[in-house]
Amino acid sequence: MNLVALAGGVGGAKLADGLQRVLGEDLTVIVNTGDDFERHGLRISPDLDTVMYTLAGIANPETGWGIAGDTFNSLEMLARYRGDAWFNLGDRDLATHILRTQMLREGMTLSAVTRALSRALGVRATIVPMTDQAVMTIVNTDAEELAFQEYFVHRRWQPVVKSIRFAGIENANPGEGAIAALQRAEALVICPSNPFVSVAPILAVRGMRAAIQRASVPTIAVSPIVGGEALKGPAAKMFHELGIEPSAVAVAQRYNGLIDGFVLDQLDAAHGDEIRALGIAVLVTDTVMKSEADRERLAQEIVDWVTRLHAR
Amino acid sequence: MNLVALAGGVGGAKLADGLQRVLGEDLTVIVNTGDDFERHGLRISPDLDTVMYTLAGIANPETGWGIAGDTFNSLEMLARYRGDAWFNLGDRDLATHILRTQMLREGMTLSAVTRALSRALGVRATIVPMTDQAVMTIVNTDAEELAFQEYFVHRRWQPVVKSIRFAGIENANPGEGAIAALQRAEALVICPSNPFVSVAPILAVRGMRAAIQRASVPTIAVSPIVGGEALKGPAAKMFHELGIEPSAVAVAQRYNGLIDGFVLDQLDAAHGDEIRALGIAVLVTDTVMKSEADRERLAQEIVDWVTRLHAR
Repeated sequence: MNLVALAGGVGGAKLADGLQRVLGEDLTVIVNTGDDFERHGLRISPDLDTVMYTLAGIANPETGWGIAGDTFNSLEMLARYRGDAWFNLGDRDLATHILRTQMLREGMTLSAVTRALSRALGVRATIVPMTDQAVMTIVNTDAEELAFQEYFVHRRWQPVVKSIRFAGIENANPGEGAIAALQRAEALVICPSNPFVSVAPILAVRGMRAAIQRASVPTIAVSPIVGGEALKGPAAKMFHELGIEPSAVAVAQRYNGLIDGFVLDQLDAAHGDEIRALGIAVLVTDTVMKSEADRERLAQEIVDWVTRLHAR
Repeated sequence: MNLVALAGGVGGAKLADGLQRVLGEDLTVIVNTGDDFERHGLRISPDLDTVMYTLAGIANPETGWGIAGDTFNSLEMLARYRGDAWFNLGDRDLATHILRTQMLREGMTLSAVTRALSRALGVRATIVPMTDQAVMTIVNTDAEELAFQEYFVHRRWQPVVKSIRFAGIENANPGEGAIAALQRAEALVICPSNPFVSVAPILAVRGMRAAIQRASVPTIAVSPIVGGEALKGPAAKMFHELGIEPSAVAVAQRYNGLIDGFVLDQLDAAHGDEIRALGIAVLVTDTVMKSEADRERLAQEIVDWVTRLHAR
């Protein structure tokens, strides 16, 4: 089954890994690049790397980002030169940023770079950046506007979010092969990623939402909010700050009109009817992926479910 | 005493370190950049780095190049992506290349970059690249022309050298402050570096040789050839291949007209008269620097000697 997943960082990468275990090369993952940035002159794509490392089986299982067993000697030396080491860059991880930067400077697209790097690491699925153009997620906080990594890593997502915008989005086209994959897909999965800063930028790329809506195949989302809390990161805090009670229902409402089905954690089973009332089918299961077996089990359940699901 | 040293890689860096121990901030080291190159999109300046790391007290004492205790995890990952890891890049060392590349891209000169990096590492002497322009030492071998690091590292200096040229030298101007330092200098020292590929490029930069000749202060060279052998690297092999018997005398002859004094290892004491016959004063001493104390002792002897020496 040809399946397209939309993913941001750690949670999305885990489900994408499960889907790769089930579908292999039939999986395409379209990944958020709104939090890409430059650091020490190197182009860093945190979500692409998290997905790529996870699908390559080399992600750090403790953090979810970075490479397992990585060291931080280069970063320590960068700090000695410059004393400004808030963004963690492992030594092995740096190789990715160095090569990506070089290939981009030589004129390759981010899509082509991503294909080359992920193939070299033995990734079977196709990873496509949401766009090859520069899009910058900007978090408007109570105090000032912050580039995403500045907000997320440097300030540890503590500033209060007032709004979010994607600078450059009006000039962004979908990454190479994204639309073709959506046209070919037999099912679409929105991974359990942050709706505001991981999934929203992907959907905001020109033509992306329309291509998803045109694809009359089952489209489902997996809730990143379980029991009113985000499994990781600022999603629940953002809901609060944007004046919405964080819940799986609130996530389903955000995707209303786009999805046919919604995967709800059993902890939130009581909310199933509220979501069904939106005309969205509901699958209640254990969505918390602690082990690699969890990822594969959840992915298999989703694949089985979407084959039975009716599209809009 | 204001002293200017000309230096290439490991041997030159050791003497420069000794001179820094004796003279501190009164030392300026003009360093070969003919073997600079780009690797994975990063600008690498092997001789500048060897001198900088040595003067900062962080050089790897076993190899002479790189940083003590460095790891090679990034390189291992680069090889996994690309399988082409002949140039050793330590993780800490990479920080230097990353920052240098960034600063150059932002429009800083190599001279300014070198000042910034070496100050951050606490180097007291002033390190000046021979030029801010791109000069590329090309080794014409029996088989083909090779960029210097390709010859030196990748081919382990095994190809037979027919000639050497410095591509771009006609457009190269001395690095920032090099001429002023030569004008201010009370003595000049050509370090025990390879005459063909470390010292010759420096002297070939427009105006450099003239500035040295105009400085009517004692100018001396330290032999990199001891007992007919190079202490490190291909100097003796190059002499052979270029049809010259490798010896301290041959080195002195190459610098004839430029130097007032020549420092000869005691192993070569018997050749002193041949060199004196060229009108060059001779200091015979132990020139092999095995320890940091050796560097300082040799540097102190040189400083004492040049204060007594008469310039041309």
